[in-house]
Amino acid sequence: MKQNIYDNQVFFEQYTALRDSGVTANDFVEQPAIKSLLTAIEGKRVLDLGCGAGAFAKYCVEKGAAKVVAVDISKNMIEKAIKENPHKKIDYLCSPIEELDLHNQTFDIIVSSLAIHYIEDYPKLIDKIKSLLITNGEFVFSTEHPIVTARKEEISNWVRDSEGNKLHWAIDHYKQEGKREGYWYVNGVVKYHRTVSTLINTLIEKGLTLEKIIEPTSIPGGIELRPKLIDEERRPSFIVIKAKKN
Amino acid sequence: MKQNIYDNQVFFEQYTALRDSGVTANDFVEQPAIKSLLTAIEGKRVLDLGCGAGAFAKYCVEKGAAKVVAVDISKNMIEKAIKENPHKKIDYLCSPIEELDLHNQTFDIIVSSLAIHYIEDYPKLIDKIKSLLITNGEFVFSTEHPIVTARKEEISNWVRDSEGNKLHWAIDHYKQEGKREGYWYVNGVVKYHRTVSTLINTLIEKGLTLEKIIEPTSIPGGIELRPKLIDEERRPSFIVIKAKKN
Repeated sequence: MKQNIYDNQVFFEQYTALRDSGVTANDFVEQPAIKSLLTAIEGKRVLDLGCGAGAFAKYCVEKGAAKVVAVDISKNMIEKAIKENPHKKIDYLCSPIEELDLHNQTFDIIVSSLAIHYIEDYPKLIDKIKSLLITNGEFVFSTEHPIVTARKEEISNWVRDSEGNKLHWAIDHYKQEGKREGYWYVNGVVKYHRTVSTLINTLIEKGLTLEKIIEPTSIPGGIELRPKLIDEERRPSFIVIKAKKN
Repeated sequence: MKQNIYDNQVFFEQYTALRDSGVTANDFVEQPAIKSLLTAIEGKRVLDLGCGAGAFAKYCVEKGAAKVVAVDISKNMIEKAIKENPHKKIDYLCSPIEELDLHNQTFDIIVSSLAIHYIEDYPKLIDKIKSLLITNGEFVFSTEHPIVTARKEEISNWVRDSEGNKLHWAIDHYKQEGKREGYWYVNGVVKYHRTVSTLINTLIEKGLTLEKIIEPTSIPGGIELRPKLIDEERRPSFIVIKAKKN
């Protein structure tokens, strides 16, 4: 059973309210990093794994993508995407990434934004991605940074003084990969912790070449609008990775 | 002025007493990881940057290396190496890595064990390494993990409860690269913090291909002899990286 937290109504409403605000870590930290690694979208066939409400699929079309297949496990998200970001060049599909069947279609670019930490079997995912990419095709993805997924405790990993000031970030259990269960709007959100070495070595073992890693901080202006983004200087929330199929 | 802490007599005596004990994180964590990445030493010309007392240079000769050039900034260390690990196939050189002049010699393998966190200019070092490697030559190095070099405070990064038990590892200032000054047997030991992305991207930008990363834990038996090595499961002290020159 794949996790489908985005079809929990409480989660969905709170998550979409956050994202629709337009002043999130996604807007100022993660998405700019993903976009900086995708410099040549024009004329390309793009697969977006974990497309959410389709903002990135729409961005690809605006940048000249020939076609975008955008996939999400959540019916809520796909309905929102079709309503808010429809386009004749975008096909929205409701499917778990793990069970995706695209009938031998291949892509120039595969993108996945903050979805891979929900996937249990990472090597199998990379096999699938490799099979969907053309030779010299690019895979660009973001995931929660191992520094933030490592610790098993459900409590916040910022350690604070008696006045609530953040003293430092707590890390533990780094080499113990696997399930981490925690609270994010609702109880029982499951993510999978993987080390930096696992994230990268699996790509290489499967025949991809690593091109670049970003541990992003806020773009200019972000911290003024959302002051807590200064925390990204103290510990990275995200890691963004670009690899090429040989 | 390059740092030469190993020629401080207090530091040198305490450090060599530790290493000579044979039950350190080097013996059970870091060196096994380095060696696992160097599978074909026979007949190769090896350059060892930061060779210390020459144990690794000697290991390379025992594994059939054609020749080893072993370099260290510390006169103390080179004297100890010549005394304890002499061999006709090993040339020991006392020089800062940054100022090394090998008169157009090239190497099949360049190794550096826990020296690179002392080097201020990492891109310049990688330029030099590239120029010293043959095409398809290998560069394998270990350095202190960014998780352990990040925080600026000089105090131990283990946060403990009132009874001294380790609660978690503290991280901060991750994206603020540069000088970290601390106590290690003596005051004022200077290391340079670099992020995972800088360590890796610099190699790729300079034209090397990343082959593997290890965030090592103890080999079997190590924890029994040195119980604190269990901490490597909680946060990695070292990162070991293998790259190839294209």
